[in-house]
Amino acid sequence: MKLTAEQKGVVVIAPTPFLDDGSIDVPSIDRLADFYVQAGTTGITVLGQLGEAPKLAFDEAASVVARYISKAQGLPVVVGVSAPGFAAMAALSKQVMDLGAAGVMIAPPNTLRTDDQIVNYYRQASRAIGEDIPFIIQDYPLTFSVQMTPGVIRRIVSENPACVMLKHEDWPGLEKISTLRGFERDGSMRHISIMCGNNGLFLDFEMSRGADGANTGYCFPDMLCDVVRLYGEGKRDAAHDLFDAHLPLIRYEQQPGVGLAVRKYVLMRRGLLSSAALRQPAAPLTAQTREEVDYLLARLAKHDRRAAVAP
Amino acid sequence: MKLTAEQKGVVVIAPTPFLDDGSIDVPSIDRLADFYVQAGTTGITVLGQLGEAPKLAFDEAASVVARYISKAQGLPVVVGVSAPGFAAMAALSKQVMDLGAAGVMIAPPNTLRTDDQIVNYYRQASRAIGEDIPFIIQDYPLTFSVQMTPGVIRRIVSENPACVMLKHEDWPGLEKISTLRGFERDGSMRHISIMCGNNGLFLDFEMSRGADGANTGYCFPDMLCDVVRLYGEGKRDAAHDLFDAHLPLIRYEQQPGVGLAVRKYVLMRRGLLSSAALRQPAAPLTAQTREEVDYLLARLAKHDRRAAVAP
Amino acid sequence: MKLTAEQKGVVVIAPTPFLDDGSIDVPSIDRLADFYVQAGTTGITVLGQLGEAPKLAFDEAASVVARYISKAQGLPVVVGVSAPGFAAMAALSKQVMDLGAAGVMIAPPNTLRTDDQIVNYYRQASRAIGEDIPFIIQDYPLTFSVQMTPGVIRRIVSENPACVMLKHEDWPGLEKISTLRGFERDGSMRHISIMCGNNGLFLDFEMSRGADGANTGYCFPDMLCDVVRLYGEGKRDAAHDLFDAHLPLIRYEQQPGVGLAVRKYVLMRRGLLSSAALRQPAAPLTAQTREEVDYLLARLAKHDRRAAVAP
Amino acid sequence: MKLTAEQKGVVVIAPTPFLDDGSIDVPSIDRLADFYVQAGTTGITVLGQLGEAPKLAFDEAASVVARYISKAQGLPVVVGVSAPGFAAMAALSKQVMDLGAAGVMIAPPNTLRTDDQIVNYYRQASRAIGEDIPFIIQDYPLTFSVQMTPGVIRRIVSENPACVMLKHEDWPGLEKISTLRGFERDGSMRHISIMCGNNGLFLDFEMSRGADGANTGYCFPDMLCDVVRLYGEGKRDAAHDLFDAHLPLIRYEQQPGVGLAVRKYVLMRRGLLSSAALRQPAAPLTAQTREEVDYLLARLAKHDRRAAVAP
Repeated sequence: MKLTAEQKGVVVIAPTPFLDDGSIDVPSIDRLADFYVQAGTTGITVLGQLGEAPKLAFDEAASVVARYISKAQGLPVVVGVSAPGFAAMAALSKQVMDLGAAGVMIAPPNTLRTDDQIVNYYRQASRAIGEDIPFIIQDYPLTFSVQMTPGVIRRIVSENPACVMLKHEDWPGLEKISTLRGFERDGSMRHISIMCGNNGLFLDFEMSRGADGANTGYCFPDMLCDVVRLYGEGKRDAAHDLFDAHLPLIRYEQQPGVGLAVRKYVLMRRGLLSSAALRQPAAPLTAQTREEVDYLLARLAKHDRRAAVAP
Repeated sequence: MKLTAEQKGVVVIAPTPFLDDGSIDVPSIDRLADFYVQAGTTGITVLGQLGEAPKLAFDEAASVVARYISKAQGLPVVVGVSAPGFAAMAALSKQVMDLGAAGVMIAPPNTLRTDDQIVNYYRQASRAIGEDIPFIIQDYPLTFSVQMTPGVIRRIVSENPACVMLKHEDWPGLEKISTLRGFERDGSMRHISIMCGNNGLFLDFEMSRGADGANTGYCFPDMLCDVVRLYGEGKRDAAHDLFDAHLPLIRYEQQPGVGLAVRKYVLMRRGLLSSAALRQPAAPLTAQTREEVDYLLARLAKHDRRAAVAP
Repeated sequence: MKLTAEQKGVVVIAPTPFLDDGSIDVPSIDRLADFYVQAGTTGITVLGQLGEAPKLAFDEAASVVARYISKAQGLPVVVGVSAPGFAAMAALSKQVMDLGAAGVMIAPPNTLRTDDQIVNYYRQASRAIGEDIPFIIQDYPLTFSVQMTPGVIRRIVSENPACVMLKHEDWPGLEKISTLRGFERDGSMRHISIMCGNNGLFLDFEMSRGADGANTGYCFPDMLCDVVRLYGEGKRDAAHDLFDAHLPLIRYEQQPGVGLAVRKYVLMRRGLLSSAALRQPAAPLTAQTREEVDYLLARLAKHDRRAAVAP
Repeated sequence: MKLTAEQKGVVVIAPTPFLDDGSIDVPSIDRLADFYVQAGTTGITVLGQLGEAPKLAFDEAASVVARYISKAQGLPVVVGVSAPGFAAMAALSKQVMDLGAAGVMIAPPNTLRTDDQIVNYYRQASRAIGEDIPFIIQDYPLTFSVQMTPGVIRRIVSENPACVMLKHEDWPGLEKISTLRGFERDGSMRHISIMCGNNGLFLDFEMSRGADGANTGYCFPDMLCDVVRLYGEGKRDAAHDLFDAHLPLIRYEQQPGVGLAVRKYVLMRRGLLSSAALRQPAAPLTAQTREEVDYLLARLAKHDRRAAVAP
């Protein structure tokens, strides 16, 4: 089953679980996959920006992908295949599609500047990996320093039939969604799925702007599913009420560098990860940070019982 | 009265008010100054990053500074003097100090890369403007692309007696505050004031890390004053309760580009500005954005009556 | 007399001469202006990137411009007016045009990324300064980090009647000239003057690609005039012979940072500047650098007697 | 035989030869290796920045390394192992050392900014690949946007016994060599080999500043060997005479993007490569560029018969 432009819901960014000794923690992969299915997510992204992919040896990466796919109970699994060259990107893409992946995500190298450079890059990438492999544009200027206007995204979509989704994490980004949906309405761009990243920091408004859902790894993906569902049911106030209760923690987890450590720490406290360990190099989780996260969880638990985790 | 390293509280970043025709709106300056005094702020920053300084002619900038000073009822007024050359920076600094400013704020040019380049820049700047003029380091990597480690800040503080304050807006930044306060405790750096920017997005935790207060322009500076005061009184939960109610709007206003338009719009709705106009070039405030801000204000008003503004 | 799209020859980038005490050296301005006229240059650019403009106070800058204009014997004088805001740019442009300047040069701020951002910037700048003021695009990605494709330049030229010249210093840049001249031939862009910078490092081939001349400050502008003239006379080999003799020094002077110190040093040794002084902050000219430049001059003098300067 | 800090001479950057159909051209590898030995080079760098490494599949890269090593007749072979993560870097390093490589070259990721980030990166990299593997720092800010001060290089050398060489291609860079050699003289840094890149554009002066030789891929490495030898014999004028004859072509080949196409074209014209083909994506070699290179070769042949290649 391949990813399509009709994708909706929450495609969760999955972490790569490690044990304290740095080895891959397979039982936690299984536990997370089960949890994602039960929580109502509609897909799983593996080896994304926050999947610590660069810290994995080639064989390890493949084994993580294979394990998630085998446990996903039919949910589409998307794999990040960004690489410094097209040869490696093509080899990795072929491998993961053979393993049963539903599509791949491609981030732009941070040397791209002009509109044409960006458009050319995605055209070459799609040809290199094969135009039968669905791909996702990752639009994350804060991290990649590459700025794609709506017009550039339209050009990429128009030139590449294999482009099915935008991982939207520009900032600010609300008008960008409105503009892209306007392109669809005026007939100048075919429909693609728009799924929002940035730890969900603006998901409450992105949904009303026309997003199809979230594609991020916030430590409560079950809450993201609820927000998307409530929006679908027209319950705007209820969606905001739930979202606002989580916002202090969403914001805290969205901090670059330390954010992934926070995310893994909460997933451990929720019983989903055996360990909060990251592979080196990694920003440490200080005692004060842990105390602050515990405090945020305690406050959140007053509004959302899922946060009432045992100490 | 000059700015000192003992500065605390909320030094509010003041906008430059314009009428719809683009001319400077002096009555709104007066109204804002009165409001800042009554709200309990402890200082005012004029011509900062969000004061639209580059859109002002030389004489206009001076007149805005002079007006704010004349209406500040003794509050210290800090002026942003960042400029492409030291000659212009020195001329502007002399002028505003002669007008009665309490100090100046200096942002690093975005071409600085190495530690030595940053340290040299501040040494040269302080000598150029005169070492009797107190200055503030603006540490805002997201906008300026200049990354200052705590060690670099310590070197700047050690070399420059005129450095009295850090406008802290690194992101993530909590550990940075802890590290700098650690330098003070271990005796390797003299005390400076640390005031937090970034629209206050992390003010709730920055206070417990050792910050002295806020130096930002969020559209409810009176709330920032309350949070700083509550922290001073040891009321952590109360501070968070108030802060969390504002967080959805804080986050919304913190968006680059559109944020200033949102801020001015709310200040107008609060009756403080006659017009929400920005000078060109400026990001427009779309109807959908206005609706979203109105919605956020209505939700906020349930927790904080100051947000219950007439439509 | 205003600058036009028919500009040809060598528009020399003039330094700002200082005495050893840092004051402006007016007699050297006069001497340089005389020299530029006699050398056959067709224009003078003042307050360019290497004119140390940011180190001049506002009044000093105006006095330097006025002096060069008064001594230029009718040569068009172009003034660099790049500024962080349109208000300052407009004020400076008006002032220098009133003094008799022929046009202005505008560099893009190094925050511009997308094609639209660049095009919008020049449109806003031209409107801000007045569309009756001829302007030059400075296309220097190495220093400004802004990459303009030929298509972007075409858009700027098409939208702005006041755009008359491109200061071409992209690197590599030969194909860019060919592409732009191709746009003119196929009727998709009106003609503009293309004058080459980069210290003339590729002038030998830029001329055959279709450039109209040079717009740079190499310490032998008389040689640049010869190369342009020889090309105009169809003497390609002779142009290269002369150029190649200078290339070791051209390359040496083109080094960022230290290059301006080298240039001033040679202009002093040629008797055109009273002092090689730069205003602070500036890269120092070490003894070893001086020895290397002397060595290069001695070697050059074997081919070009103009380099046989007294020790 | 492992690379040491005593390395001198010319370690040539070898291209990866392709046939017109894009497959690896093994006979050309053999021919190049023979040529490098006969030309007097003292080492070979494979899979460097201009070895098109990112376009090679994993197995292809290994086969190119193995072939060069098998044909190098005892010359040390250095391999570029820069990678987005330490896991891949360690795997590649182990593989090439097992194949017989003499050491590895590591470029910094272009996200590094502060001094500490750069120092930490090299410490982590050396530990990841194993401290028994000699490594080379590649200091190339123009391409990598990472600026290393001499003090930072000293810290890397001091912390990492495995650091044996600096590939020096900062620009400007002459003072940097002088400063590093000064560190050695004053005893604050142990000796390392400094080999110069940047296509040799400043090799004539870098030698007298204290460089040990060149580490670059200019299409006449035999000329680079001569220049290094002449300097060693104290024949400064003769070294410059030969160098200056090549400078027009050196400069032309040093252009980013198109430079590698020029290099391969000349190597083909010299009979060393069967084809000038690059793998896609690559900058094309236009007819006009080819004509210009032919013209430069014809001019060069008047001074250096090695450039008198058959048409």
